[in-house]
Amino acid sequence: MWGLTDFKQVIVARTDLGMGKGKLAAQVAHASLGSAEECRRRSPEWYEDWKQQGQAKVVVKATGEEHLRELQKKARTLGLPNSLIQDAGLTQLEEGTTTCLGIGPAPSSLVDKVTGDLKLL
Amino acid sequence: MWGLTDFKQVIVARTDLGMGKGKLAAQVAHASLGSAEECRRRSPEWYEDWKQQGQAKVVVKATGEEHLRELQKKARTLGLPNSLIQDAGLTQLEEGTTTCLGIGPAPSSLVDKVTGDLKLL
Repeated sequence: MWGLTDFKQVIVARTDLGMGKGKLAAQVAHASLGSAEECRRRSPEWYEDWKQQGQAKVVVKATGEEHLRELQKKARTLGLPNSLIQDAGLTQLEEGTTTCLGIGPAPSSLVDKVTGDLKLL
Repeated sequence: MWGLTDFKQVIVARTDLGMGKGKLAAQVAHASLGSAEECRRRSPEWYEDWKQQGQAKVVVKATGEEHLRELQKKARTLGLPNSLIQDAGLTQLEEGTTTCLGIGPAPSSLVDKVTGDLKLL
């Protein structure tokens, strides 16, 4: 019997912007939905498996814009669905500020190659 | 010429549980995705309009479980897509604890009938 593949989504959030709790949560939700939709289009079987397993979401910390972009590059290299969020600039931040990166849902072992060393927010 | 209908999603989060920032953000993302999927199934034209308009998401405060359930009742009465989240209980909270309620995407004027008097988180 084969082992089940374990799926998760990780959302990486910048901690250097001083976003308030509600702002941060909305940005994380943007990244989560954006990356989930990319997964649903490209790898619908991953998406369904993730949902069946309870759609695990984990939020971790990044130090700044460069960090997010490096992580996105790694995610792309591995072929993982991802979504980098830039703020619309209506409140708190300047327009175009990157805030969060969603990665997955995807097999946890692959996501960990990108975000495995990041700390929980 | 008709005015454009303005769409938004509101996520209501309990502030009485003392959730950490990352936990809170993950719960908000669950509610956002759950309610967005309900909208996509039931009212795909609302979903597409909301996305085209930049998928506005607003996070507001609720005082506790009863408050969330009252708001969900109102949302249902108005026929608005919604998703009440119960935590899986793996970290911080007891299994089954309600944490957040996602409402919409839906026309802002309808969402405001449910959440218009709640404060931003």
